[in-house]
Amino acid sequence: MKWRVLSVGLPLAAVLGSAAAHEGMWLPDQLPKLAAPMKAAGLQMPVGPLSDLLAHPLGAVVSLDGCSASFVSPKGLVVTNHHCVYGSLQYNSSPQRDLLKHGFLAAELKDELPAAPGTRVLVTVAQTDVTARVLDAQLQQLDGQARTQALEKRTQQLVRECEQDSGHRCTVKAYYGGSLYRLIKQLEIRDVRVVHAPAQGVGLFGGDTDNWMWPRHTGDYSFYRAYVGPDGKPADYAANNQPYQPKHHLQMATTPLREGDFVMVAGYPGSTDRYRLPREVAYAFEEQKPRDVAQMGDILAIIKASTAGRRDAEIRMANTVAGVANYYKNTQGQLASYEGGDLLQRREASHAKLLAWVQADPARRARWGAALQEVDELLAQRQALQTDLRWQDQIEPTLLGHAAELLHLAHERTKPADQRESGYQARDEGDWREAVTSLGKRYDADTDRALVLHFLQQYLKRDKTNAALLGALGVNAQMDEAALQQALTALYAGTQLQDDAQRLAWLERPVAEFERSSDSMVRAAVALRQHRLQQQALQRDLQGRLGKRYVRVMEALRAYRAAAGEEIYPDANSSLRVAFGKVSGRKPAVDGSDWHAFTTVQGIVAKHRGEGEFDAPAAQLAAIKARNWDGYADAKLGTVPVNFLATLDTTGGNSGSPVLNAQGQLVGLLFDGTLDTVISDWDFDDKRNRSICLDARYMLWQMKVVDKAQRLLQEMGVR
Amino acid sequence: MKWRVLSVGLPLAAVLGSAAAHEGMWLPDQLPKLAAPMKAAGLQMPVGPLSDLLAHPLGAVVSLDGCSASFVSPKGLVVTNHHCVYGSLQYNSSPQRDLLKHGFLAAELKDELPAAPGTRVLVTVAQTDVTARVLDAQLQQLDGQARTQALEKRTQQLVRECEQDSGHRCTVKAYYGGSLYRLIKQLEIRDVRVVHAPAQGVGLFGGDTDNWMWPRHTGDYSFYRAYVGPDGKPADYAANNQPYQPKHHLQMATTPLREGDFVMVAGYPGSTDRYRLPREVAYAFEEQKPRDVAQMGDILAIIKASTAGRRDAEIRMANTVAGVANYYKNTQGQLASYEGGDLLQRREASHAKLLAWVQADPARRARWGAALQEVDELLAQRQALQTDLRWQDQIEPTLLGHAAELLHLAHERTKPADQRESGYQARDEGDWREAVTSLGKRYDADTDRALVLHFLQQYLKRDKTNAALLGALGVNAQMDEAALQQALTALYAGTQLQDDAQRLAWLERPVAEFERSSDSMVRAAVALRQHRLQQQALQRDLQGRLGKRYVRVMEALRAYRAAAGEEIYPDANSSLRVAFGKVSGRKPAVDGSDWHAFTTVQGIVAKHRGEGEFDAPAAQLAAIKARNWDGYADAKLGTVPVNFLATLDTTGGNSGSPVLNAQGQLVGLLFDGTLDTVISDWDFDDKRNRSICLDARYMLWQMKVVDKAQRLLQEMGVR
Repeated sequence: MKWRVLSVGLPLAAVLGSAAAHEGMWLPDQLPKLAAPMKAAGLQMPVGPLSDLLAHPLGAVVSLDGCSASFVSPKGLVVTNHHCVYGSLQYNSSPQRDLLKHGFLAAELKDELPAAPGTRVLVTVAQTDVTARVLDAQLQQLDGQARTQALEKRTQQLVRECEQDSGHRCTVKAYYGGSLYRLIKQLEIRDVRVVHAPAQGVGLFGGDTDNWMWPRHTGDYSFYRAYVGPDGKPADYAANNQPYQPKHHLQMATTPLREGDFVMVAGYPGSTDRYRLPREVAYAFEEQKPRDVAQMGDILAIIKASTAGRRDAEIRMANTVAGVANYYKNTQGQLASYEGGDLLQRREASHAKLLAWVQADPARRARWGAALQEVDELLAQRQALQTDLRWQDQIEPTLLGHAAELLHLAHERTKPADQRESGYQARDEGDWREAVTSLGKRYDADTDRALVLHFLQQYLKRDKTNAALLGALGVNAQMDEAALQQALTALYAGTQLQDDAQRLAWLERPVAEFERSSDSMVRAAVALRQHRLQQQALQRDLQGRLGKRYVRVMEALRAYRAAAGEEIYPDANSSLRVAFGKVSGRKPAVDGSDWHAFTTVQGIVAKHRGEGEFDAPAAQLAAIKARNWDGYADAKLGTVPVNFLATLDTTGGNSGSPVLNAQGQLVGLLFDGTLDTVISDWDFDDKRNRSICLDARYMLWQMKVVDKAQRLLQEMGVR
Repeated sequence: MKWRVLSVGLPLAAVLGSAAAHEGMWLPDQLPKLAAPMKAAGLQMPVGPLSDLLAHPLGAVVSLDGCSASFVSPKGLVVTNHHCVYGSLQYNSSPQRDLLKHGFLAAELKDELPAAPGTRVLVTVAQTDVTARVLDAQLQQLDGQARTQALEKRTQQLVRECEQDSGHRCTVKAYYGGSLYRLIKQLEIRDVRVVHAPAQGVGLFGGDTDNWMWPRHTGDYSFYRAYVGPDGKPADYAANNQPYQPKHHLQMATTPLREGDFVMVAGYPGSTDRYRLPREVAYAFEEQKPRDVAQMGDILAIIKASTAGRRDAEIRMANTVAGVANYYKNTQGQLASYEGGDLLQRREASHAKLLAWVQADPARRARWGAALQEVDELLAQRQALQTDLRWQDQIEPTLLGHAAELLHLAHERTKPADQRESGYQARDEGDWREAVTSLGKRYDADTDRALVLHFLQQYLKRDKTNAALLGALGVNAQMDEAALQQALTALYAGTQLQDDAQRLAWLERPVAEFERSSDSMVRAAVALRQHRLQQQALQRDLQGRLGKRYVRVMEALRAYRAAAGEEIYPDANSSLRVAFGKVSGRKPAVDGSDWHAFTTVQGIVAKHRGEGEFDAPAAQLAAIKARNWDGYADAKLGTVPVNFLATLDTTGGNSGSPVLNAQGQLVGLLFDGTLDTVISDWDFDDKRNRSICLDARYMLWQMKVVDKAQRLLQEMGVR
């Protein structure tokens, strides 16, 4: 687990960063400027092809929308992390056929299983600068909700034009705090199938205990395959679809990877916050993250208690538990670093310098002074709203939120095509169907009600509560626990939305049917609608006002940094990036120990306990005991390497990213960071930061010797 | 937790060991022979005093019967591990006054709290060789039960004579497989009080997660005080008792401890198994320990489920949970090492060599040949019996076992004083009272019944079950879960033994009252009595036959080793031992990392999560943040060291042992081993073995700066 997208930060985040040593998630088109440091670090191929999205190797690197991946055969075979395929394994699992536990290997193409609804392989085919069309003169004049609407309208128009080319998904992304916009066009392959996953005792070896930890021994790899229609174009799942033939696929490395070697990683990092303002740092680390940690602890305990002894419910909640546990540990790690460091003080000091620099010059003062002053109060307003919304989320039954979304979709459908909101357009209909379908696989009513009850009791003690929402739930602050329990039991008993067919039926119904429904969740959604629209309007107004000024502030920051001669890269925003570094242990690592660059299969034997999180398959243990390396041992280590550390700058979203050697060959998969540097999203530490990668030799050895996945190895061009 | 006595092995265990480098738990009287290697390792004081039990420093080292400890002031202040005082903290805790959680510091002498019943400070005052009186000519002729009885009679007589000196506890201990016997005389101080324990967030920092692990940051120290009557002699607890004035107490080190420094540890290691026969190794690692691991996993899960939400029950079961969890992890560690190694093959090879050496010479063959042949079959019989008894233990309600013991005591009381069994004599009456009293603090009927039900269901599926025991429980193999549940509910409802006063009343009652009782557990005990006596007779017969031959086998082994010129030391047997070594990290340590010799308080900040097992007190974190070292920082580390690693040969029972420097000054407390070398009890690895010690500087810093324990520091002669 670990480096998949954890949570989405403020959408305004996109700023400049200073580039020290191996810090930096670079835009491919920036790489030619970095040729010297990359060569110095050991790159042996020309930089030119690395800057071309359509050339090898970047042409083989794809997004799974939250994870990264790459083609490794001419027949659309995709390798990514086990934890990125986890949801699809869960989707195909039942107590009788537990793919999570035992793993999966399709014997032939026809045995490959449909991935979870919504699974996509996205191949980036073009990036175009659209700044001039987004930030036109008219938009510059607008403020508040008008600005938000205008921005949305422009990006929608760009997306609509781009998606005329069917089978493609287009997105407009903001860079550098919204002063640069790019239109990204991706081939959207929507028939994705599960091909192979090792047993949980390999793919998730170490579980939560080892998550974000070193030494690490996780076989975090799995395989999907991209399928297209007989015409070679993206299509919905159909039996006669064919494997997609990518223009490029990666080759497995032919030379052994060693400590000190150059490596680079190409993938889709989600978001970073390297240049947040002091007020944002303070809110994140002194309010938001501590609250998240407290709430996530409760969530995990409640899910555990509620699903105990019900393997079926456990499987349905497994993906949620994995995601929450991962974010929980990550956030705790960030908080520990924050408490042990002085991030806020440093940010305050550098912000004070920026303010002084702006104040020192009349032109700078005229251009940025007001924005710098105004943004602070707007951020405070936004943070207060964010806190309220977070609490509302916690006490809203999943099916109520779902009903509200379906109702909103029904309303949007009544509008002309070009006036419908983003996310509620014709292009999104397929996603809606999948979201509605897959909910059933991930929903457990008892657990949902227990969570709502728990947070409702806390919420009712707050100074400020939302009367409309409480009314829709049929509860009030005077109720004791028994009364709340009773009200919720009635609410949950009065809906049929837990039924898949019922939800699908509602997906087709017009607004009028919602309004006369007697389903308790639908009624609550109808009752809340006006209130939700008001809250949304408030948000959009604030977003417009804040966005307008935040762009200015980031402009000022960029100018200030540029004046100091600093090399720049934009914060991560889920677009394709390249980072480079070296395979490297850490010394000193953590208090009391040093870290080697590689772990080996011997470490699996040492950690194996025969149960729980450390339960390696017997066949694997036997192969290790017999030293049956089959050519995959490293001569220097004398055994098969499992995971390695590298000085690569990565974050959530990079999970599954191919790690390439100096020749651009595949040597591993990025899958994690280390707990004491997960704060790197906010504060990069060039000396201590390490990414944790799966060594491809371990994957190939396990596939060959233990799991007998010869069909796939042949396809990948390996012996 | 960690190096307290885990479980007692076969009492016959006591064999010869070869002494490689720092291997060896030496008898103090052996030390003069080791002067050269000890000096070479860095010892700076003369060896002579170290071999004298009554001199400094050994005169300050005491046993807590399961843990080790030492006097650190002239007023009887005793320092040991936090986990050795855990039971007493639990005994004095309630949900309202949670000493486990918050720690404890007596403001004055009068505030010191009585330790848990049965807590003793044992000061060894004499060791006498009594081999000639135990193994006399008559005993040599006996076999079977007669031998067992004769052995018991001789040791009882020795103990009785020795204990004429009131206030003393005497024990006869076997060494070298029972070919050497020593009478050990200890001053038995029975008014022991809790003086100081840090908060759980210090004393148990890292909890089960870090147990047996490195890097480690556990402040595993606490203080007792020994009290005696106004006449200076051991006495029961009384308000006017006075602090005991030990002849010797340890001085705190005056020079900073560094990597490479000589250290020695003096304490009471429980038992080791370094020269077990192949059949014993196979049984332990292929049957007993795997079964223990499976059962302990179940036990922990059942206790957790049964006590969830009942903090009172949780506190009552806390000591059991801590003990089981500790043994569980330890055993898993041993099994992992066993599976990754070739212990059995090596033992088989060395045993084959021994056999060949015996066979090669007629005199040797005549002397040891038969015993070597016969012991194998006897071990097999004993192992089968051991397995049966273990299962019976698991399905016997705690109160039934308790009632059976009370009944046996009532029977023994009817015998003349010199014919009563060991453990049921007049000298044991005080222990019985304490055992009966303290049970109430550690018993939870619901949990007990859940455990019995669980194991009963497994037991009834065995080929061989005990009809008498099942009959006494009122169950049979035809019952389904509901019927078993019902039978047990009736059994548990029909007793009043969970009531402290009831149990104390039964402690005084004669046999006849047991026999006419209607209490369900008492009735079951009466019904089982004949069967238990038969089983005991079987055991004693086997013990006699096995013991007679095992002594021969161990003699042969000693002779064989002596012929090879090997230096020898006896296996641990809870008598006072000294081990020496150096402060040393490990490189390579475990797969993927190296270990430093020291951890520091910075590591606490890094591990702190604000909850659960990693919840350092706020005042401590603040002091670390402020770098308020108050003179306790190590100049080289630049901060306060917390724990250190040393190449000391230790095992369960060594917990709380003082670690002394080259001058014999106190530098730390031994508290743990590392998981990948806990198999050292059976198989010592001189390169990898490390003991984990608390650095005394951390203890003093925490006491001074955080817990403000100035009264104690002054008493210890520290600033």
